Amino acid sequence: MGSQSDWSTMRCAADVLDELGVSYSARIVSAHRTPDRLFAFGKSAHADGFKVVIAGAGGAAHLPGMIAALTHLPVLGVPVKSKALKGLDSLLSIVQMPAGVPTGTLAIGEPGATNAGLLAAAILALSDADLSQRLKAWRADRTGSVAEVPEG
Amino acid sequence: MGSQSDWSTMRCAADVLDELGVSYSARIVSAHRTPDRLFAFGKSAHADGFKVVIAGAGGAAHLPGMIAALTHLPVLGVPVKSKALKGLDSLLSIVQMPAGVPTGTLAIGEPGATNAGLLAAAILALSDADLSQRLKAWRADRTGSVAEVPEG
Amino acid sequence: MGSQSDWSTMRCAADVLDELGVSYSARIVSAHRTPDRLFAFGKSAHADGFKVVIAGAGGAAHLPGMIAALTHLPVLGVPVKSKALKGLDSLLSIVQMPAGVPTGTLAIGEPGATNAGLLAAAILALSDADLSQRLKAWRADRTGSVAEVPEG
Amino acid sequence: MGSQSDWSTMRCAADVLDELGVSYSARIVSAHRTPDRLFAFGKSAHADGFKVVIAGAGGAAHLPGMIAALTHLPVLGVPVKSKALKGLDSLLSIVQMPAGVPTGTLAIGEPGATNAGLLAAAILALSDADLSQRLKAWRADRTGSVAEVPEG
Amino acid sequence: MGSQSDWSTMRCAADVLDELGVSYSARIVSAHRTPDRLFAFGKSAHADGFKVVIAGAGGAAHLPGMIAALTHLPVLGVPVKSKALKGLDSLLSIVQMPAGVPTGTLAIGEPGATNAGLLAAAILALSDADLSQRLKAWRADRTGSVAEVPEG
Amino acid sequence: MGSQSDWSTMRCAADVLDELGVSYSARIVSAHRTPDRLFAFGKSAHADGFKVVIAGAGGAAHLPGMIAALTHLPVLGVPVKSKALKGLDSLLSIVQMPAGVPTGTLAIGEPGATNAGLLAAAILALSDADLSQRLKAWRADRTGSVAEVPEG
Amino acid sequence: MGSQSDWSTMRCAADVLDELGVSYSARIVSAHRTPDRLFAFGKSAHADGFKVVIAGAGGAAHLPGMIAALTHLPVLGVPVKSKALKGLDSLLSIVQMPAGVPTGTLAIGEPGATNAGLLAAAILALSDADLSQRLKAWRADRTGSVAEVPEG
Amino acid sequence: MGSQSDWSTMRCAADVLDELGVSYSARIVSAHRTPDRLFAFGKSAHADGFKVVIAGAGGAAHLPGMIAALTHLPVLGVPVKSKALKGLDSLLSIVQMPAGVPTGTLAIGEPGATNAGLLAAAILALSDADLSQRLKAWRADRTGSVAEVPEG
Repeated sequence: MGSQSDWSTMRCAADVLDELGVSYSARIVSAHRTPDRLFAFGKSAHADGFKVVIAGAGGAAHLPGMIAALTHLPVLGVPVKSKALKGLDSLLSIVQMPAGVPTGTLAIGEPGATNAGLLAAAILALSDADLSQRLKAWRADRTGSVAEVPEG
Repeated sequence: MGSQSDWSTMRCAADVLDELGVSYSARIVSAHRTPDRLFAFGKSAHADGFKVVIAGAGGAAHLPGMIAALTHLPVLGVPVKSKALKGLDSLLSIVQMPAGVPTGTLAIGEPGATNAGLLAAAILALSDADLSQRLKAWRADRTGSVAEVPEG
Repeated sequence: MGSQSDWSTMRCAADVLDELGVSYSARIVSAHRTPDRLFAFGKSAHADGFKVVIAGAGGAAHLPGMIAALTHLPVLGVPVKSKALKGLDSLLSIVQMPAGVPTGTLAIGEPGATNAGLLAAAILALSDADLSQRLKAWRADRTGSVAEVPEG
Repeated sequence: MGSQSDWSTMRCAADVLDELGVSYSARIVSAHRTPDRLFAFGKSAHADGFKVVIAGAGGAAHLPGMIAALTHLPVLGVPVKSKALKGLDSLLSIVQMPAGVPTGTLAIGEPGATNAGLLAAAILALSDADLSQRLKAWRADRTGSVAEVPEG
Repeated sequence: MGSQSDWSTMRCAADVLDELGVSYSARIVSAHRTPDRLFAFGKSAHADGFKVVIAGAGGAAHLPGMIAALTHLPVLGVPVKSKALKGLDSLLSIVQMPAGVPTGTLAIGEPGATNAGLLAAAILALSDADLSQRLKAWRADRTGSVAEVPEG
Repeated sequence: MGSQSDWSTMRCAADVLDELGVSYSARIVSAHRTPDRLFAFGKSAHADGFKVVIAGAGGAAHLPGMIAALTHLPVLGVPVKSKALKGLDSLLSIVQMPAGVPTGTLAIGEPGATNAGLLAAAILALSDADLSQRLKAWRADRTGSVAEVPEG
Repeated sequence: MGSQSDWSTMRCAADVLDELGVSYSARIVSAHRTPDRLFAFGKSAHADGFKVVIAGAGGAAHLPGMIAALTHLPVLGVPVKSKALKGLDSLLSIVQMPAGVPTGTLAIGEPGATNAGLLAAAILALSDADLSQRLKAWRADRTGSVAEVPEG
Repeated sequence: MGSQSDWSTMRCAADVLDELGVSYSARIVSAHRTPDRLFAFGKSAHADGFKVVIAGAGGAAHLPGMIAALTHLPVLGVPVKSKALKGLDSLLSIVQMPAGVPTGTLAIGEPGATNAGLLAAAILALSDADLSQRLKAWRADRTGSVAEVPEG
């Protein structure tokens, strides 16, 4: 993520990865304040053993796209809700990538962070049958928890 | 894709998959006109051997999200440019999924379709070293083709 | 409606139906978390004796359009106000349906839910003269309650 | 509709009503240029035997909402695509009605006009079993016409 | 104004008219709930001695445009801030009038209401030299009250 | 108007003033390129005998608001359609004036220019009974020209 | 800045200039309420020894563009967050200047004000080696303060 | 600029720099396709003798912000008009930078490119009296070329 303040959003990705038993590393990499860290991370992500990168940022959100420019690993982007424009700027900055460098973009804010974790798990589950079972169970559990009629 | 008219956009995904030597099946599945086909496809996609689903649709674009509701495979969504609102409706209909059911969303229109193909390839490359090499080569080739100075 | 959290909005539809003496069934059917329930509901709605379906959902709101794909009954959609984009995403996801599968869309949030109830009543009143009288009385009562000059 | 220029859009509603064998009257009623005609039409629509009103207008589109204020018949609104803002103004002017006076709003432009015809037919079909059969056949025909794979 | 709830905004127009010594009548006329009152008011406004009409409404705000359709007096429109879309819907519903029926539109919310009062005064001042002097004094007073440097 | 290129839009205001027999002076005053001309014009407009100012501009459209800052005459603003954002920038730059300095804003583009002419005429007609008659006749003529049924 | 209320935003520019040891003068100049002050300031800014002008304003924000029209000094614009439209109106009013009169526009609200101070410092640093060193140190300090991993 | 296709826009910056006698180097540096070139350029820009950087890009436009992250030179950003969203995405991606890393953003498209050249010249003119004279002459020439009355 791009800053400490993004953690309250991105923690939702960490939470769902914890629930699904997927290991991860949570790091702060600011495209604008720590471009060297960005470059070092992006260039070595594959060699360092990462398989999927989830990048969350807000406003002129360049982190997901710049990591996607530096690695051929799948990159998922989470538009963090911004103060003035409520994440519309974050969303467009992440999703409107030119042909050649994709970022798989999720919803604005916490639902997007949760879904980034789920999509990363779905990607990893393609070659991990146990994870695939846990993911199916997680989703079946969600389905089962939906009440038939509203309360209150 | 949701209709024949989406093919002029979605063909870009097919083209890049062809270039990268990734096999695929191109089908028309309309969430609204052929809901049974949608359900049958989504429910059996995993058993039928699909690994990643790329879904493109425009306007009130429900296809990507509904397939994501029916399978735990990774689903990538391409917002097809719509006539009145230029794809802003397509984008929001695809990306703003609630927590629990992710669609990795790409850019509006042709660049998004190309990138859906590339992201699908990046996902498959995690367990296919040859594809990983081809993807790296494809991207290096793109980098090499960028001129230093503008012409004309 | 798509989730328990939509009930605070959709209750307005229930309230006005109660006031008008129209019977209804309030159910939670999530297009994304319970797609089987969605299919079962949509396919049997006509046979089950429903005459009009009011569907409310937020964000990438696929519930109204998907029910409309599964039944030829009139479907009315209520865009629930979403957290980041204030219901603009909900509105576009519901209203921008392709030719062939209509959803009659009401305003974002509580006014839209109230109006969905009223429009459903207006539809049913076409073949129910008593309801037609009650609806006219309800509206006349509203007209009568508008003060001539502002207070305070 | 509000003006002659809306006819190229609203004709799509007429076309689908013709296909479904539903009789209708196509009239130009401008909320702004012919307010007397608007009032006369709205006030007598029920007595004149109309069952559903489809109103299409563009820009600051007041026609659907004003007719809804004048009759308790179901009113469906079609946002005609406007020159500068591409129908976003039309859509918001029609759909964002206050609680008490509903307009069931369809998509911007031609798809919305077609769908207004279909929704009107669905409403009338509630008390017309023959029309209900024709509507189901119309939709089945549409489903059947969706190709399995893209061409070209 | 369209409803009692608009008064907290429209009171700003009344306040500035009071300050400038311009007489006015504040009335609630709902385009949607009291269309007869709207018609009666609009048709007789000129004969009743009104010179300028200030109309404020929110959401699908039809009041200003419909009054403008019913009278050839100058009509000024104030877009009241709406709950979901913050007055963008109100603004477009009021300002995007078709050629032939103008509404002079002011800013969203309280500044717009104040300015509607000021613009009405400026219009009346064209044939009222005393009011013209009071208006100039009011504006000079505003200019004089702007500090040279910020405080705090 | 702010530039020669605005004339194709603003000519609509001139045309309707010609039709109504209202004399006017059409001038190019660029807020940004000729600020001295702007100041001279705004400061002397009242003394020079102008009664209403119609100002049209596009993009970051400052002309209407700056003239309104320099005179206490009524100022009407026309948002000229801009190339990239289709006049949304022009509209917001003109209408969102702070409390104290009003611009009565019309629709984007040609309809707005026509309506600025009509609103100016309506203002002048308050103290010109002949013009009032011509304006009423103009509007009655428009009403009469609306066909009852669509053609073609 | 355009008003006292902008100071809570624009103070961020003052703060960063203080941190960098750049002298400045903070003034209130309202384009709309004090146009004479605006003209006097803009016309004499160069002769008065100013090198860069930072102008912040909200809504129909004309201050930056009008100063840019009056001086050939570099002008930086800060869109102050507005009440209804959250600064989107401010942003478009400042950034969409016609060819010939530039304003270098920063982000909406406090981050934009901070960045206006930084960009002004970067401009002045081109001919002030000491300031250049302080600016580099300021930025290095920011880089160093970014934690590697999130807390809490 | 980010690609050859941006040159038709960015040429406007080159043209005005030519007119003003300011030397420059026009280069293609793609943030996404040539990130190494971006890093090398940004890191050495100051040492290479550049004084101001003008960066133009479209869509998810990361080039201006990433260069600003890599150098403390002033960076000016030009949002190139994009295909689907007409440059709104480009604008938000460039202007909404977080506090600490500024990009002075100009208008969307060709006017913005021209203005980037002019603003760069204004910055350089602070320490180049001859350029300052040429810039003043350029602007005076523009002022002089504005006709008093519209033609045609």
